[in-house]
Amino acid sequence: MNYFSSDFKLGILGGGQLGKMLLFDTRKFDIQTYVLDPSDEAPSRMACNQFFKGDLMDFDTVYQFGKLVDVLTFEIELVNLEALEKLEDEGLKIYPSPKTLRKIQNKGTQKDFYTEHGIPTATYKRFNDLKSLVVQILDSKLKMPFVWKCTEFGYDGNGVKIIREIADLDNLPNVECIAEEMVPFKNELAVIVCRNPSGEIKTYPVVEMEFHPEANQVEYVICPARIDEKVAEKARAIALNVSQNFNHVGLLAVEMFQTHDDQIIVNEVAPRPHNSGHYSIEASYTSQFENHVRAILDLPLGNTDSKVAGIMVNLVGEEGFSGNVVYKNIEKILGWYGVTPHIYGKKETRPFRKMGHVTIVNENMTEARKIAEDVKNTIRVISK
Amino acid sequence: MNYFSSDFKLGILGGGQLGKMLLFDTRKFDIQTYVLDPSDEAPSRMACNQFFKGDLMDFDTVYQFGKLVDVLTFEIELVNLEALEKLEDEGLKIYPSPKTLRKIQNKGTQKDFYTEHGIPTATYKRFNDLKSLVVQILDSKLKMPFVWKCTEFGYDGNGVKIIREIADLDNLPNVECIAEEMVPFKNELAVIVCRNPSGEIKTYPVVEMEFHPEANQVEYVICPARIDEKVAEKARAIALNVSQNFNHVGLLAVEMFQTHDDQIIVNEVAPRPHNSGHYSIEASYTSQFENHVRAILDLPLGNTDSKVAGIMVNLVGEEGFSGNVVYKNIEKILGWYGVTPHIYGKKETRPFRKMGHVTIVNENMTEARKIAEDVKNTIRVISK
Repeated sequence: MNYFSSDFKLGILGGGQLGKMLLFDTRKFDIQTYVLDPSDEAPSRMACNQFFKGDLMDFDTVYQFGKLVDVLTFEIELVNLEALEKLEDEGLKIYPSPKTLRKIQNKGTQKDFYTEHGIPTATYKRFNDLKSLVVQILDSKLKMPFVWKCTEFGYDGNGVKIIREIADLDNLPNVECIAEEMVPFKNELAVIVCRNPSGEIKTYPVVEMEFHPEANQVEYVICPARIDEKVAEKARAIALNVSQNFNHVGLLAVEMFQTHDDQIIVNEVAPRPHNSGHYSIEASYTSQFENHVRAILDLPLGNTDSKVAGIMVNLVGEEGFSGNVVYKNIEKILGWYGVTPHIYGKKETRPFRKMGHVTIVNENMTEARKIAEDVKNTIRVISK
Repeated sequence: MNYFSSDFKLGILGGGQLGKMLLFDTRKFDIQTYVLDPSDEAPSRMACNQFFKGDLMDFDTVYQFGKLVDVLTFEIELVNLEALEKLEDEGLKIYPSPKTLRKIQNKGTQKDFYTEHGIPTATYKRFNDLKSLVVQILDSKLKMPFVWKCTEFGYDGNGVKIIREIADLDNLPNVECIAEEMVPFKNELAVIVCRNPSGEIKTYPVVEMEFHPEANQVEYVICPARIDEKVAEKARAIALNVSQNFNHVGLLAVEMFQTHDDQIIVNEVAPRPHNSGHYSIEASYTSQFENHVRAILDLPLGNTDSKVAGIMVNLVGEEGFSGNVVYKNIEKILGWYGVTPHIYGKKETRPFRKMGHVTIVNENMTEARKIAEDVKNTIRVISK
């Protein structure tokens, strides 16, 4: 198959910032891309060969789009799975496979999968609805505290809640859910795995999510994680194992906890380029996006090693500001060593909306961490 | 001025591969771009906000285009200078300035400029036409061998010829030209300088052009050059001096010779992103393209240091092949350590046409050089 400057067409479901960053690499390789997204202002609208506006959850829209391309991938999990399954049955190459996506899309099924394959994960119970969960609490069969998670359509913190008392269940939707043991942990880690259809597989180094000490919000994604080498090896081995068991093709971001006694347990996975891998654009020999393209086209995978230490800071809309965005002090941070802002291209900011990210690279991790903190304290995503 | 996700518009004259690579960085910063190019198949057509098809040498086309944007730059020197001068007179910010471009566009004027500013360069004589040059040879006032260069519109080796005997002048155009002393040299070097309107100025490390021992063709651009540190410092100082004397804004690629007694003499300059800086996308903290964007918008310049050693191999169309391009063995080289191909997106190959380049990065220069040679010997740019 000839992908480069040819008639070959790669279809991408979803046109957000992940798609936009993927398009840097399809452009670099001159691979034709078609993008489907519901928004006229999708960040991926510009650098694809053809943009299609349409509903990613609509069977016909996704099915018809799939008929136009040679290989299909997605940058968001919330897509019409039935359409993908039909397209795959009809012979279209879809990576990651809808079979894998089906196992991942539902958090209950995902947890069952870990259990069946002996992959360490927090203990959990599945419930068809919130009412059945409440019954078990009342019957003393489920002890608080625990983590409530709705099994589908949760995203970026939505659909997850710590339940310490019955009142915490108020206002939760009466949908399929799981109750998960609260595991005390000292680090939240992630490993991105890439794998191609031929079975070549590589892991990126372990990254560490550093939380704000009070706000309990991820502030920095740090690569490599500042953890013991043996723990890092264990985390990479587990992530590799997860990807292989899923028979996954493309990128799989495996989020994990490091417990206080250095056990690694899998939290959840995302079958696509991931926020925890954005640092790789500047820090790695091959970025996660380029490796996604390579993997789904069954090309050899690029080197996942880092050239330098990398730290990523998300740019999210500041509270109290809505409307046309201004990146205040961006001129200032541009002058600092190894600082690269990525602006996703969303015109309007809203509180907590992901508007971009900043990567800080440096030969010295301590230095990078200092600069990252200065970046975090200096740049502000506000409105005019 | 707010450039990011705003109404600000950057105009770019020329839509070739240099423009295409520049657009990666305007996209990364979400800066709006308008591109003017005569070809429907311009590599920059896709990732700009608006593409305009038109003749870059036509006064009205360039002038009208300039009226649409807030800052104007170019990725090719062959543009209508009168239109740029009028636009600048009317207050448009144009970087590099047409005043600088006028000094550079004519090689005779460029050489005079070096002489006036005490910048070391090979001795030369200017001629209004070929006939006047011939007269001087016949009068024994000009000795062969020398290098004939037409003063305008030469590009990529066109317009340059070594004259060893009168017969070598046959078929040369009767245009304005210079005769330049042939300087024996042991290395051909280049330094890219970037400078913003506020006067902040940085140089990239010295790169070395390694020639094929027989074909006398550049095979590898190597960063850093494998030369003595003192010679490298001298080359960077001279390049800095050239940029400051031109009062140049944006990127200036300064091509130089290192003579056998380690003198550095300036050959010529290009006021734009340059082939000798392509390695910087993978090897440098800030690529030449990002620094061009930063410079012309008067933003702080990014770090020009390298993270790792970088070698660039041009992908040019193989002799004997014309038509729809195929990059033979590209799958093979993709599997090697630190190898990144850039495919410019030209559908048709022709002998010697620049179709792309490959960057090889590595912590170890010797290793990088070996892999670069394997790349050179493996990939082939042919037609179907």
